[in-house]
Amino acid sequence: MAFRPLLLATVLSATISGTVSAKNDLETINRIRDEGLYRSQVMHTLQHLTDRIGPRLTGSPQMQQASAWTVQQLKDWGLENVHLEGFAFGRGWSYDSAYVQMQSPRKAPLSALPVAWTPGTNGSIEGDVVFLDAVTESELEKYRGKLAGKIVMLSEPEEIEEPKPELFKRYTSEDLGKMKNLDLKRPASNAHGAPDAIAQGRKRLAFRDAVSTFLKQENAKAALYRSSRDGGLIRVFGHDHTVGKTFPIPALVLAAEHYQLLLRFIEQGETPRIAMSVDARFHDEDHNTYNTIAEIPGTDKNAEIVMIGAHLDSWHASTGGVDNAAGVAATMEAMRILKAIGVKPKRTIRIGLWSGEEQGLYGSRAYVEQHLASRPKPSDPAERELKPWYWTSPGFPISKKPDYDRFSVYFNMDNGSGKFRGIYTENNIAVKPIFAEWFAPLSDLTEGIVNTNATGGTDHESFDNVGLPGFQFVQDPLDYMPRLHHTHIDSFDHVLPDDMRQASVMLATFAYKAAMADKRMPRKPMPTEPSELLQQLEKEKAEKRQRAKERKALSELPL
Amino acid sequence: MAFRPLLLATVLSATISGTVSAKNDLETINRIRDEGLYRSQVMHTLQHLTDRIGPRLTGSPQMQQASAWTVQQLKDWGLENVHLEGFAFGRGWSYDSAYVQMQSPRKAPLSALPVAWTPGTNGSIEGDVVFLDAVTESELEKYRGKLAGKIVMLSEPEEIEEPKPELFKRYTSEDLGKMKNLDLKRPASNAHGAPDAIAQGRKRLAFRDAVSTFLKQENAKAALYRSSRDGGLIRVFGHDHTVGKTFPIPALVLAAEHYQLLLRFIEQGETPRIAMSVDARFHDEDHNTYNTIAEIPGTDKNAEIVMIGAHLDSWHASTGGVDNAAGVAATMEAMRILKAIGVKPKRTIRIGLWSGEEQGLYGSRAYVEQHLASRPKPSDPAERELKPWYWTSPGFPISKKPDYDRFSVYFNMDNGSGKFRGIYTENNIAVKPIFAEWFAPLSDLTEGIVNTNATGGTDHESFDNVGLPGFQFVQDPLDYMPRLHHTHIDSFDHVLPDDMRQASVMLATFAYKAAMADKRMPRKPMPTEPSELLQQLEKEKAEKRQRAKERKALSELPL
Repeated sequence: MAFRPLLLATVLSATISGTVSAKNDLETINRIRDEGLYRSQVMHTLQHLTDRIGPRLTGSPQMQQASAWTVQQLKDWGLENVHLEGFAFGRGWSYDSAYVQMQSPRKAPLSALPVAWTPGTNGSIEGDVVFLDAVTESELEKYRGKLAGKIVMLSEPEEIEEPKPELFKRYTSEDLGKMKNLDLKRPASNAHGAPDAIAQGRKRLAFRDAVSTFLKQENAKAALYRSSRDGGLIRVFGHDHTVGKTFPIPALVLAAEHYQLLLRFIEQGETPRIAMSVDARFHDEDHNTYNTIAEIPGTDKNAEIVMIGAHLDSWHASTGGVDNAAGVAATMEAMRILKAIGVKPKRTIRIGLWSGEEQGLYGSRAYVEQHLASRPKPSDPAERELKPWYWTSPGFPISKKPDYDRFSVYFNMDNGSGKFRGIYTENNIAVKPIFAEWFAPLSDLTEGIVNTNATGGTDHESFDNVGLPGFQFVQDPLDYMPRLHHTHIDSFDHVLPDDMRQASVMLATFAYKAAMADKRMPRKPMPTEPSELLQQLEKEKAEKRQRAKERKALSELPL
Repeated sequence: MAFRPLLLATVLSATISGTVSAKNDLETINRIRDEGLYRSQVMHTLQHLTDRIGPRLTGSPQMQQASAWTVQQLKDWGLENVHLEGFAFGRGWSYDSAYVQMQSPRKAPLSALPVAWTPGTNGSIEGDVVFLDAVTESELEKYRGKLAGKIVMLSEPEEIEEPKPELFKRYTSEDLGKMKNLDLKRPASNAHGAPDAIAQGRKRLAFRDAVSTFLKQENAKAALYRSSRDGGLIRVFGHDHTVGKTFPIPALVLAAEHYQLLLRFIEQGETPRIAMSVDARFHDEDHNTYNTIAEIPGTDKNAEIVMIGAHLDSWHASTGGVDNAAGVAATMEAMRILKAIGVKPKRTIRIGLWSGEEQGLYGSRAYVEQHLASRPKPSDPAERELKPWYWTSPGFPISKKPDYDRFSVYFNMDNGSGKFRGIYTENNIAVKPIFAEWFAPLSDLTEGIVNTNATGGTDHESFDNVGLPGFQFVQDPLDYMPRLHHTHIDSFDHVLPDDMRQASVMLATFAYKAAMADKRMPRKPMPTEPSELLQQLEKEKAEKRQRAKERKALSELPL
C-alpha cells in the first residue's frame, strides 16, 4: 500500500492544474465506464473468436476466417479505414482430428495432439515405439538402420515433479508494493535475446534440423514429444512453417503422464506399440498472413497515432482463450466503447490485431517495419535463421519512416484475462507521472501500479525495439502459466468476465487519454549500438561466468 | 507446535516404565526403518500395479489379474495363508479405447472416457447432440419421440469457476496444531449417511433409473456427462453393475471444457454433431470379485488378529496410482518389511486387499460380515437399494462372530501418497496415549498428531461400523482431491516415492507394535440403536432446519 500516497498526490496536482479539461475528461470516462462495465459485449466477442471460429493458428484457414470476421465486426461498429495488411509468413496448416491408442503391452487411449506444421498420417498407422537417446549428430548414427517404420520419442525423459502449490494467483498488496522498484538485474529491455539464449537457440535449431533429416532418411513413421506441462495438459508448439523446411513425418505432443508411461515400459525392456490417426494438412494457396487494422480518425491531430492491439493468432491445441482471444476481445471492445459513446479524439486511435505473434512477433514487426521504422537484420546469417526474439542485436542504424515522429504510443494486451493492476513503463521514467494521473479516476477499479521494469515476450517489443513507446499492463497472473498457456484447455471457459470488462475500460481510457493529451507520449533515449567498451565488458563478464561454471563443476567431482 | 510437549512427556513415561521391552522394540524399529527406508521396494510394487496391470475396476479382467498377482507376490515374499476370498458383486466390464470427435459446427477432437458398466459403440457412431433439460420424470415426457438416434447430454450445465488457488498442500504446523481438538460439529462416526444424503441419494437413483429406461425406449444413441473436475481432467464414475440393471446405451464423461462448449453451441441454437467410437464390453463369466488375504502368523497369541489393508480396485480412467495403488503398495511393503527382517509377532499380522471399495466398500464389508460381525440391512427396502454408505442406520443387533473378540485393530491406507503426519482415532480416546507412544521413536519421520475426530469414506468404516477399532492416518492432502481423485491422470507419476517409503515404515511399525502390545487395542462403546428421545430430537432439529430454510428463501424475495 506504499504506493497510494504517491497516486493521491498526483491526482490532486492534476486536478488543480487543469480543472476544466479534467472535468470534461471525467465525464467522458464516466461514459466509457458506463458502456464498458454495464453494456459490455466483450464476452460475446470472445465467444465468437473461441467457440465459433476455434483455434487461429497463423496461416490456417481459421486464422483467415478470424481476420475476415474482425474486419467485418469493426466495420459494423462504425470504425474507419478497416483493412487487412498482409506479410509473408510461410505454409498454412490445420488439423481436424488426432487419436493415439496404446496397443501393447496393454490397451489404453493416450492423450495427444499434433505438432503444428507436421503432416497427417493419411489414415491409421501403427508401429513400435523407440526412444531416440541422442543429443548430438554423431549420436544419431547409433540409430542408423533401426528406425524404419518406428514411432520415435524425441523429448528428454523428465520425471514428473510435485506440482507448484499455487495454481491461481492474484497479486497481493505486498506483491504490488514491490513493483515500485526497478530491478537492476533485469535488462533495460526484453526486446533482445541474451547471448547465451542465442547460442542455445542456434544449437537446438541445428540439431532439430539434423533429427528431421535423419528421421526422413531412416523412414521413421512418426515422432512423439512430451507435453511441457503435466496434469494431462497437452501443451503444443510448431515445427518450421517455412516452405521447403516443414517436418517430414507426423509428430504429436503426448500428455506428460502418457509419454513417461511409454518411457518406463522401454526402460523395462518392453517395446510399446501404438496406433494413431491424425487428419492434418498444409495449405499453400496463400503464404501470406494478415494483420487487421482499423481506426477512429483524429480531429485536429489526425496524423498522429495512438494504438492499442493484441495478437489474433493462437496455437491450435484449444481455441486460444486467454492467449489471446482475451486481448483481442478487450482491445476490440475498447474501440467499440469509444465509438459507441461517440468520442472525437484529437489524435487517431488505431487498433492492430496481429498475426504470427506465436511464431516470433511477426505481425507487429511487419507493421512497425512497414509504417514506423526498420532495422537491418542481424549480420550473422545463422542468427538471422533464428526467430527474431533470439536475435542478440538487430542491426543499426534504425531507419525512421515518416509516421515515426507522428506516432505517440502503443498499448498491448497479451497476458491472459487477469485484471489490470498497473502498467510496465519499460524503463521509461518520463511516462510515470502521466500514467499515475490517468489511473487516478480509475482507482476504484485498479491499484494503478506504475512498474518501471521492462516486460517481454509479446508485440509491444516490436515498438520498443525501435525506440517507440510500447507498453503492457501489469495483470493478475491467475492460472495463465500454470495450466492455460498453449495448452488444450485454453478455451472460453477460463477467461474471467469481470476482469475482461475492467481491462476493456482501462484500454479505452488509456487510448482516449493518450489521444487527447497535449503532447505525444515522451520517449526513452533512442536505442544505439553498444559502445566497444560496453561490448568488451559484456564479453569479459560472459567469459568469467563460463570459467566460474567450469571451476564449480570441477569442485563438485568426488576427490 | 503445541502438541510437542505432550508427545515428549509420553515418551519419557513410556521409557521409564518399560526399559527392557522398549529397548527390544527400538532395535526392531531400527530394522524396520533400515529395510523400509533404504531397501524399499514400494515403488517397484506400485509400478507393477499401475503401469503393468493398469486400471483395476472391480470385476474387470485387470482386477482379477491384480488379485492373482498380489497372491503370487505375497507368497513369493514368504507370507502364509495367502488366498483370495470371493464375494458376489455383479457384472465385469472393461474398455480398450474411446474416441470422440466434434464434426460440426467445426471439427475438433474432444476429450472423453466411457462411464463404467455402459456398452461400447460397436464401431463408429455419429449423431446430433441434444441437452436433456429435465429434472423430474414428467419433464422427461417433453422429449418423447425426439431422442431417436441422438447423443444426449445428461449433466447439469455448470459454468467453470476460478480454480481454487491451492493445487498441492502439505499440512503446516498450524494445520496440525488445530487437529488436537475434537470437532463437535462432526458426527461420532462417518460410517452412516446423513438423513438428507439418503433422501437425495434415493431421489437421484430413482431419476437415473427413469432416464435410463427413457433413453432405451426412445432409442437414444449415446449419453454424455460432464467431468466433475475442469482443467481437462476426465473424472469418471460407473453406472449400475448389477446383472439386469446395467445402462442400456454407451455413455461417456467429457472434459468439462468440451461439455460446456457443446452446451454453449446448443444455447445459441446450433445442433452440434459428434462421432464416437468406444471399444468396451461386459464380462459375465464370474459375478464374484475377490479380496486378497495373507498373514505373518502370530506366536503365543496366534488367534488374535492385527490387520492392515487397502483397496486394490480402482476406477478405469487411469491406473489408480494414488487411489489406491499407493495404499496397496505401502501395506504390501509393510508386510514385506516385517517378513524380511524376520519378526515373530505375538499376534497374527494379516493384510487385506479389498475389492469393490469404489462401488460401496463392498470388499471390507464382506470380510467383516464373514469373519467378525454382521448387521441386518436397513429395514426400508428403498434404503437397501442404495450404496451402503447412504444407509442411515444399518440395523441392530450386531451379531458377533467368534473372531470378533480375538480382533485387535485394523489400519487402513486410502488417502493418496501423502506423508503420514498422524492418525485419526475415530472418537476413541483410549487409544490416544498408545498411539502417542508408538509415534515417539518415529518423531524424526512424523509429527505424530493424534486426531480424535472421525474420518470417513473408506474401508476402516466397515470395522468401525461394528464397533471394532479401524483407523486411518492423517496424510498430507497433496493434489489428491484437486486433480487426481478418479481422474485420467491418477497414474504412477503422481505418487511421491519418499512419502511412500515413510508410509510403509509407519504401517510396519504400527502393525508390529499392535501385534506385540500387552493388550488388544481398546475399543469404543459398542454402537447401539439411538434411543427414541434421541431420534425425536434429531427429527425436530431437521424440521427446524427445514423451516429456517423456507423462511430465509421467503425473506430473500424482493418486497
